[in-house]
Amino acid sequence: MRHLLDITDFSVKEISDLIERAKDIISNPSVYREACRYKKLATLFFEPSTRTRLSFEAAMFELGGNVLGFEAASSSSTAKGESVCDTIRTVSQYADIIVMRHPDEGAPFAAVLDTGVPIINAGDGGHNHPTQTLADLLTIYRRHGRLDNLTVGLCGDLKFGRTVHSLIRAMSNYDNIRFVLISPEELKIPEYITAELDKKKVPYKETADMAEFMPELDILYMTRVQRERFETAEEYERLKDCYILTPERMRSASETMSVLHPLPRVNEISHEVDSDPRACYFEQVANGKYMRMALILKLLSACEKGEEKPITFYPSDKKCKNLHCITAKEPELKSLKIIKDGKERCYYCESELH
Amino acid sequence: MRHLLDITDFSVKEISDLIERAKDIISNPSVYREACRYKKLATLFFEPSTRTRLSFEAAMFELGGNVLGFEAASSSSTAKGESVCDTIRTVSQYADIIVMRHPDEGAPFAAVLDTGVPIINAGDGGHNHPTQTLADLLTIYRRHGRLDNLTVGLCGDLKFGRTVHSLIRAMSNYDNIRFVLISPEELKIPEYITAELDKKKVPYKETADMAEFMPELDILYMTRVQRERFETAEEYERLKDCYILTPERMRSASETMSVLHPLPRVNEISHEVDSDPRACYFEQVANGKYMRMALILKLLSACEKGEEKPITFYPSDKKCKNLHCITAKEPELKSLKIIKDGKERCYYCESELH
Amino acid sequence: MRHLLDITDFSVKEISDLIERAKDIISNPSVYREACRYKKLATLFFEPSTRTRLSFEAAMFELGGNVLGFEAASSSSTAKGESVCDTIRTVSQYADIIVMRHPDEGAPFAAVLDTGVPIINAGDGGHNHPTQTLADLLTIYRRHGRLDNLTVGLCGDLKFGRTVHSLIRAMSNYDNIRFVLISPEELKIPEYITAELDKKKVPYKETADMAEFMPELDILYMTRVQRERFETAEEYERLKDCYILTPERMRSASETMSVLHPLPRVNEISHEVDSDPRACYFEQVANGKYMRMALILKLLSACEKGEEKPITFYPSDKKCKNLHCITAKEPELKSLKIIKDGKERCYYCESELH
Repeated sequence: MRHLLDITDFSVKEISDLIERAKDIISNPSVYREACRYKKLATLFFEPSTRTRLSFEAAMFELGGNVLGFEAASSSSTAKGESVCDTIRTVSQYADIIVMRHPDEGAPFAAVLDTGVPIINAGDGGHNHPTQTLADLLTIYRRHGRLDNLTVGLCGDLKFGRTVHSLIRAMSNYDNIRFVLISPEELKIPEYITAELDKKKVPYKETADMAEFMPELDILYMTRVQRERFETAEEYERLKDCYILTPERMRSASETMSVLHPLPRVNEISHEVDSDPRACYFEQVANGKYMRMALILKLLSACEKGEEKPITFYPSDKKCKNLHCITAKEPELKSLKIIKDGKERCYYCESELH
Repeated sequence: MRHLLDITDFSVKEISDLIERAKDIISNPSVYREACRYKKLATLFFEPSTRTRLSFEAAMFELGGNVLGFEAASSSSTAKGESVCDTIRTVSQYADIIVMRHPDEGAPFAAVLDTGVPIINAGDGGHNHPTQTLADLLTIYRRHGRLDNLTVGLCGDLKFGRTVHSLIRAMSNYDNIRFVLISPEELKIPEYITAELDKKKVPYKETADMAEFMPELDILYMTRVQRERFETAEEYERLKDCYILTPERMRSASETMSVLHPLPRVNEISHEVDSDPRACYFEQVANGKYMRMALILKLLSACEKGEEKPITFYPSDKKCKNLHCITAKEPELKSLKIIKDGKERCYYCESELH
Repeated sequence: MRHLLDITDFSVKEISDLIERAKDIISNPSVYREACRYKKLATLFFEPSTRTRLSFEAAMFELGGNVLGFEAASSSSTAKGESVCDTIRTVSQYADIIVMRHPDEGAPFAAVLDTGVPIINAGDGGHNHPTQTLADLLTIYRRHGRLDNLTVGLCGDLKFGRTVHSLIRAMSNYDNIRFVLISPEELKIPEYITAELDKKKVPYKETADMAEFMPELDILYMTRVQRERFETAEEYERLKDCYILTPERMRSASETMSVLHPLPRVNEISHEVDSDPRACYFEQVANGKYMRMALILKLLSACEKGEEKPITFYPSDKKCKNLHCITAKEPELKSLKIIKDGKERCYYCESELH
């Protein structure tokens, strides 16, 4: 059985196969429209996310399959105190493949311990959101014809933005990538990400000034700066406008730069930018659907072929201290650890064990 | 691209074509059951409405298509502060046609500014609800064999009842229609509607007495009198029973009168009336499904043919003052005006600009 | 028209036909995957229940049909004060068969008074949950090869557990069944159930000690002991651990015993038991889906054949006093009575009329 919990579950080769498959789907949709006939996708959204849920539903329908599931935990058995693993084991009797969004970090990692069907992580708290990254990669590839030799600017909330973290991890596997990390001090990229970049010898610059490196960028990946991230409202008011993309700011950028955004946006990209040919955040939405179609096909066929990718973890005598980890919500889960960049980390949420 | 935002978007000819199509669907359902194979309808209910949502879902299924969407804004990106236009632009990547219900007046008028797919207005606040009117028209046509030469009584809340307003607008395009407007003083029809009738020289009478014109009516369209519409509970208690349809009241009506109601009803039609052959509010439910099937077919084929119906509006320097208008919720929307019965009105909600 | 409101609506013969049909579906799924093409199932969940709803949706999809409905009353017209009967009459214009879950006892009994399509009761308050019983019966049959000559232990909350009551009623129709009723004093089986057993001369023992009869059991049916059932938290704390199934407790049980649970479980079966070959509560989930498929097929074909099973009730001058009865929520419902074990009972909720 193969799953997609973290973008690093797939090799560079596997990702380029998904991209090729997505491109074929785009050019020959009718070839695929019965590909999943009689198959069922379960969309289990323990927290709401229209965009992602509808993207998966559209993907499955365009493959000729059916969809069942729930939109919010309130209408799930969780409300009755059921564990994630029991819910998943139950739903795996109803569906051939499961997509889950969960507010707690590591929830899908718990789910795969105990399932008979492939699991796709559609977001687990602030931890991972790999299918967004698949959408980003196809968008970059279709716009630039390559995933290497690119200068990638990431702007806004780099501290909590899981899509930013996944994209950096994914892009840093390609040759000659440079990152420009644009954020207020308060929302700087976490140290463990820059540590990974240093380890891989991937060059990056950090700046608080959106304009500084604008002309050098091939890609500008915008994210939302959320009020709730700041100590004080003043702090937020002082900073938010520094990270709004406007037609003025676009003037200094290259003609071939592409602007991405995981959406939903609030005000960080002004609506006048939408008509700029370099804006591709709505293309990104369509690309997300095509990559999810390719992903569903890949995981279902891996399941039929009995492909396995063993997950290596070890029992741990240290409890995870991350309050957002699924183990905090479900203490009966076994304490498990992985070794990552030489550190003992929680198997579920990857936070360091002390 | 064609949309249905207001019943007046369709000509009398187009409405009679829809009625003919609906009648053909009723007599030959099997001809249509693959008509929308591989097509997707999105049902975006920013506020819940089971009846309308399920009617569209049933319609799309009976055309062989698929349905995706959400039941309530709580599970939409709106909760994250996304604009209606961004939600629509996103969903138009997932679906071939969109149905939307929104609490704010004019929301679907904002949506069509920025979409690649046909939009159907399934209710925008107190403003419009054109597909209910399509259901009403088919019901009248099937019961009376005509849409002209009819005396139409409308009873209950004529002030806030959007279905009443749409039905009057639609019916007043046919020859020799007379309206009887039955409501308490507090819930009288708005002046701008009677102004339209005067302009079109359509005769109407206003009365607070349900019995007064009962024998003359070909159609009695009942609506709910809601407690919250009244200043005081006493006021409500004093009035509500005057507008309840009972078997006694039915006695004075013609044998061929038909009783319609958009549903849900609470107590304004007593359950004993349900068995009266003149009661056709449940037929109306079925007719709504058939007209929605005809509508989906019409808009999808218009889309394929590239039919256009240009919307004419102008930039306005006056902001709309209607607090229920989508522009109040989303101030970044451009101020736009239309000219209607010689007045400058908000493009979105049609309220007068001052 | 046939419905399933109470497990006793079906004869022993009909239940064994359903079991045979389910077994055939399990061995030849492809024979059935277009069986309900062009048919629509409505899932009306006036209160949420993921497990049951998804089971029906999966069942209908595996029969090639479509599904529409709602997950919670909040998004139904009930919120607008519509009666259950009006909602059902409306939805019967949209679907070929309706599944409903409702918080009020007897709601589906009200629904069938006024519907054009078959109704399946997916749980009405504490009253009935017959499709869970169908799942239980298939599980027992597949594990033991028979439904007679069995010693059935039921453990936990026997007072409020509707699945327990339905299973006892169903099993007591087979030869040589013995029941062992294991519960704290506070949660003992209701007197009217033991009265039925006495009447049918079905032997049973009552005990508060989970271990006492363990070695004699062919089946152990576990249920949840809910904190809210107890007067005091101490009371609950004192008792709850006495009714948790652990590997230790399993040691004294027979090698061929099977452990069932309607799920969701909280802590009444420890997770170590899951790997015990005698644990079959996840099989039960799959069996529920197959029996629901068989049930949908049976009711739809009964509908086509015009099969009828008259329900006999009489007008009553006594109002039902059960505060959880649908008649308490909807006083306009006619007062109706049935005669059962020589008592006048409410037609809707079966509680005694005084």
